[in-house]
Amino acid sequence: MKKTKVGIVGLGRLGKEYARNLSFRIRSADLIAACSISEEELDFARTELEVPHLFKDYEEMLKLQELEAIFVISSTNKHAEHIVKALQAGLHVYSEKPLSSSIEECKMVEAVAAQYPKQLAVVGFVRRFDPSYRYAKQKIEEGAIGKPYLVRSQTIDKDTVAAWQIQYVKSSGGIFHDYNVHDIDLARWFLGAEVESVWSLGGAYKYPAFEEAGDADHVMSTCRFENGTMAVLNAGRTAMVGHDTYTEVVGTLGTLRIGRPAAVNRVEVYDQHGARQECVETFWDRFEEAFLRIAEDFLTCIQEGRQPELTLSDARQATLVAEACTRSFQKGELIKVKELA
Amino acid sequence: MKKTKVGIVGLGRLGKEYARNLSFRIRSADLIAACSISEEELDFARTELEVPHLFKDYEEMLKLQELEAIFVISSTNKHAEHIVKALQAGLHVYSEKPLSSSIEECKMVEAVAAQYPKQLAVVGFVRRFDPSYRYAKQKIEEGAIGKPYLVRSQTIDKDTVAAWQIQYVKSSGGIFHDYNVHDIDLARWFLGAEVESVWSLGGAYKYPAFEEAGDADHVMSTCRFENGTMAVLNAGRTAMVGHDTYTEVVGTLGTLRIGRPAAVNRVEVYDQHGARQECVETFWDRFEEAFLRIAEDFLTCIQEGRQPELTLSDARQATLVAEACTRSFQKGELIKVKELA
Amino acid sequence: MKKTKVGIVGLGRLGKEYARNLSFRIRSADLIAACSISEEELDFARTELEVPHLFKDYEEMLKLQELEAIFVISSTNKHAEHIVKALQAGLHVYSEKPLSSSIEECKMVEAVAAQYPKQLAVVGFVRRFDPSYRYAKQKIEEGAIGKPYLVRSQTIDKDTVAAWQIQYVKSSGGIFHDYNVHDIDLARWFLGAEVESVWSLGGAYKYPAFEEAGDADHVMSTCRFENGTMAVLNAGRTAMVGHDTYTEVVGTLGTLRIGRPAAVNRVEVYDQHGARQECVETFWDRFEEAFLRIAEDFLTCIQEGRQPELTLSDARQATLVAEACTRSFQKGELIKVKELA
Amino acid sequence: MKKTKVGIVGLGRLGKEYARNLSFRIRSADLIAACSISEEELDFARTELEVPHLFKDYEEMLKLQELEAIFVISSTNKHAEHIVKALQAGLHVYSEKPLSSSIEECKMVEAVAAQYPKQLAVVGFVRRFDPSYRYAKQKIEEGAIGKPYLVRSQTIDKDTVAAWQIQYVKSSGGIFHDYNVHDIDLARWFLGAEVESVWSLGGAYKYPAFEEAGDADHVMSTCRFENGTMAVLNAGRTAMVGHDTYTEVVGTLGTLRIGRPAAVNRVEVYDQHGARQECVETFWDRFEEAFLRIAEDFLTCIQEGRQPELTLSDARQATLVAEACTRSFQKGELIKVKELA
Repeated sequence: MKKTKVGIVGLGRLGKEYARNLSFRIRSADLIAACSISEEELDFARTELEVPHLFKDYEEMLKLQELEAIFVISSTNKHAEHIVKALQAGLHVYSEKPLSSSIEECKMVEAVAAQYPKQLAVVGFVRRFDPSYRYAKQKIEEGAIGKPYLVRSQTIDKDTVAAWQIQYVKSSGGIFHDYNVHDIDLARWFLGAEVESVWSLGGAYKYPAFEEAGDADHVMSTCRFENGTMAVLNAGRTAMVGHDTYTEVVGTLGTLRIGRPAAVNRVEVYDQHGARQECVETFWDRFEEAFLRIAEDFLTCIQEGRQPELTLSDARQATLVAEACTRSFQKGELIKVKELA
Repeated sequence: MKKTKVGIVGLGRLGKEYARNLSFRIRSADLIAACSISEEELDFARTELEVPHLFKDYEEMLKLQELEAIFVISSTNKHAEHIVKALQAGLHVYSEKPLSSSIEECKMVEAVAAQYPKQLAVVGFVRRFDPSYRYAKQKIEEGAIGKPYLVRSQTIDKDTVAAWQIQYVKSSGGIFHDYNVHDIDLARWFLGAEVESVWSLGGAYKYPAFEEAGDADHVMSTCRFENGTMAVLNAGRTAMVGHDTYTEVVGTLGTLRIGRPAAVNRVEVYDQHGARQECVETFWDRFEEAFLRIAEDFLTCIQEGRQPELTLSDARQATLVAEACTRSFQKGELIKVKELA
Repeated sequence: MKKTKVGIVGLGRLGKEYARNLSFRIRSADLIAACSISEEELDFARTELEVPHLFKDYEEMLKLQELEAIFVISSTNKHAEHIVKALQAGLHVYSEKPLSSSIEECKMVEAVAAQYPKQLAVVGFVRRFDPSYRYAKQKIEEGAIGKPYLVRSQTIDKDTVAAWQIQYVKSSGGIFHDYNVHDIDLARWFLGAEVESVWSLGGAYKYPAFEEAGDADHVMSTCRFENGTMAVLNAGRTAMVGHDTYTEVVGTLGTLRIGRPAAVNRVEVYDQHGARQECVETFWDRFEEAFLRIAEDFLTCIQEGRQPELTLSDARQATLVAEACTRSFQKGELIKVKELA
Repeated sequence: MKKTKVGIVGLGRLGKEYARNLSFRIRSADLIAACSISEEELDFARTELEVPHLFKDYEEMLKLQELEAIFVISSTNKHAEHIVKALQAGLHVYSEKPLSSSIEECKMVEAVAAQYPKQLAVVGFVRRFDPSYRYAKQKIEEGAIGKPYLVRSQTIDKDTVAAWQIQYVKSSGGIFHDYNVHDIDLARWFLGAEVESVWSLGGAYKYPAFEEAGDADHVMSTCRFENGTMAVLNAGRTAMVGHDTYTEVVGTLGTLRIGRPAAVNRVEVYDQHGARQECVETFWDRFEEAFLRIAEDFLTCIQEGRQPELTLSDARQATLVAEACTRSFQKGELIKVKELA
């Protein structure tokens, strides 16, 4: 079995997990290169993963002859640049979401990618690869709930993450770009249409620091789709129960609810607090398997010369809607998505 | 123990249930009069309930000297008139929701009621009297979820009801006045504030006949409250699972979810369809006890000379927001509630 | 509508609840007499219920001409005597479970009752009247789970009750007679057969005081029925979660599980303890409606001249099996029920 | 990182899954040899897994110099022989459960293993490696439910498997050895004690063919442990809902319930059948990850020179209790386990 030689840029918390998957859990990958400006992160790649080629300079890594594909898990504001350079170096490229919080930048990356039609370029909306989400999607395609017309979806972090997020919020693109892009992608996926207009509202209900940073700790966006269907998307930073992320799809013949509660496992506790299930702490605990599967799928697509389901256009659309939400939240108005396109 | 002598106007499906409660299940009531234009309904009162005084003419009933209070369970477009006449006849009055789908009419009724300050006049938002909703309210007041800032609430009938509703929709005031007034009232109750602006969308996703009647089979309304909190309200007519009505309240320290699934009882079935709970068929199955309790509470208030929690002002506010939703749905715009007040 | 004139003997915790139901919630009852040796209990009947005839002496009460039926809610060791005297006085009689923990006494009561075939004599196994249990029974009769062959049933009190029970255990007949008679009755009801042999085991796992009193704080009994079906019954005194009582019926085509968790209502809490439901504190919280319905049913049977579903023979069989369990627990052996009959 | 060179004997349904795990999912394993008498099974190893050394004769495989460990996934009646020969060939050995349904044979294997103390020999009770079971075990060790004193555990296959099992039952050792060994092992693990006596009952409630084969389609065993604690174990072949396997552990301070319902994933369906979760089809669907983890753990133990948690003594105890259950079921008597030891 042929292995694809891959490099990774960015070895932060999430980058390390990608790198572990590429090293140990994905048979079709051979992680031969890693790039980071952090000595600690390169040490991790050297000692824990035994990655042979380590770089502090991204362009140096791209010169490595054997490389076939790059995983871009760098900071959000570097995604577009790293994708473009990888494409120009003749490589396939997978990038963590979001593509960019700038619509112009999204379009620029798409334009570059169009010049390299034989190279794959995808942005990873992992939830599409979670087994429960895939199962739901398949049931819907089989007609189990008739025609879907309403999606409710939320991405809410555990409260304990908030302190760390307060520092990070200014460089994150804001809660709509950082959290709701997932929900936007899922709503488009389940409803099979594009968003026409949005209204977003919310506030810093628990931690005023988010408001001071021009952001919020809970936001809600209502979306009208071009085909008349609708979605309501929540994002939050203050759930006490755990990483409280789920999606519900309502159709003419039934409803599917995916992932609520986000139980940590199959154990129920009966004690003085009631009959209860403990919930996952982080998005990683919830979507660990999806992260594995999406990377496997990307490598399989390379090896089979197949186009992945997710395209840069999906990434641009998600950014477009997230930006519409951001403006709606800032202005308090209904926003037509087309006006931003 | 003193019993309050009550009359009832309207003995349709719901009126019969009220009358049964007043006859058999509420100790402090003595149902001595009933009014209906239907011979069948009067027969019911005569033979099944043994109500001594029966009327075809509402004003005749109001002349009955012994009467102390009236239950108005007539058709929606008669509520205001029946309330006003009962007040003018010196009686306490309880009316089924909604007060009216006309804001002007709501104000008129309030003005009349203001002239009779010793007589109670309430509109019955029964969900506030459901044991689970009351429990949730109490927990919130005790601080269990911190400060509430988001309410999700929905009123969705079982699909089997739709055929009947299609005929009835034109006289119902529409889905926002008919269904969402409950959710509007609950959101106001839990958030402790008034709605500032709304955006409503939806459609006739399953039954085009609702669109032809200027209505919908599923609608969703997003509300911004004056204190910066928010709500999202759904109403629908096509749930396959049963009467799928529930409410969720999100606060800074936790979330309460009330009534989902609307299990018919405490039985779980494990069979070829999975591990499952069957759900209630109708709002009556779900809220039977609340209907009993709200009537009991009204009678207790009369006997104790106490003001009920629910006021005509609550009813007017609910109508105001339902009307804002209706206009938003019709025009596709964000609506400021104040503009209609 | 004719009302049956009833008296009650025993106004302890449970007696008060029966008396409230008979006074306020059951239309067909007229509670005209109450008997207790406790001044406080008679005061309750006098002031809160306005019962006209009060007695300290049971035989005096039985002389009251108007009386038609007696509710025996006295202490367990008085049930048999009180039933017999009521029958001899020409009255219908309803008794709280158990009939007696002596098989001989059960037979004696049956023999007396046989002399008064026109008077009803029943022992109240209330769970058969809980709406969820009735629903399960009906589904089984409709064939929903095929042929039932296994019952799991348990009666477990909340831990907070244990301190009080330690004092009471010696006069209670022991945990099998006091708790498991309910589960024995349900197993007989669902499986449609009599118990052939039992093995009981258990211990005082938390509170040694129960062992010192010759009892236990958790016991488990396995039953083989004469038709080859089987049951496993648990009783306990130390649940932290609440009154953790439920029943599961397994058949050839499916399984029904009734009442677990014993959620206090329809509210779910999402907080730092997880996604959870709070549970009922006591058997009264769980079975309040069943207590109402069983008393209503008894009165309806009187008025319609109909035989109730529950007979003294049911009560004797439950006692017989509870006694077999007790002996099995004491001796550590398998016990054939017939040997005790 | 060093890889352990392993061989496998038996490539039936379960053997194929083990072989896939060893080939693709376990980094520390190098599957270099496979043995089967079936040409189809060897073809699978050759083409799908590219195993370099294939054998029809087990003893020939054991001569392969490089081999370090053997996975025995052959038919149950070959386990003991294959373990012994692997040990004598100087290899570590992992065997699927059960060790044997003969207690004498268990002892013989233990005696042989005692001669090779540097070689690992374990029997795989996979449930101990399921993430939810491990989580429960850890919580118990942390004191979350106080002292455990009752285990309920069941292994029930989906009904659709029964037709296939009818043919296989005679060579399976019977339902206690084939199914309940898992539950016996879990009860010993959670209660920390050995079984003193058992009573087993059951029948062929749905498929008489099992009775004709001297077996049953549902059995229940009650166990008294030497420390006074207790367990009730069910095994069945006719669940309509899916593979309905779960375990409940009751302690003085709380209860843990593991794995019920055995939901196939995190999707809930709301439709005409109610609010429901679909359940897994087979034990593999439920315990796939546990099978991976137990094999990984075995290899880690080899590489770290560490003794696995599971020993041959655990396997012998499980067989001993399963045999006691079998005899109790056949004779209808209470059986002391010691009498068989």
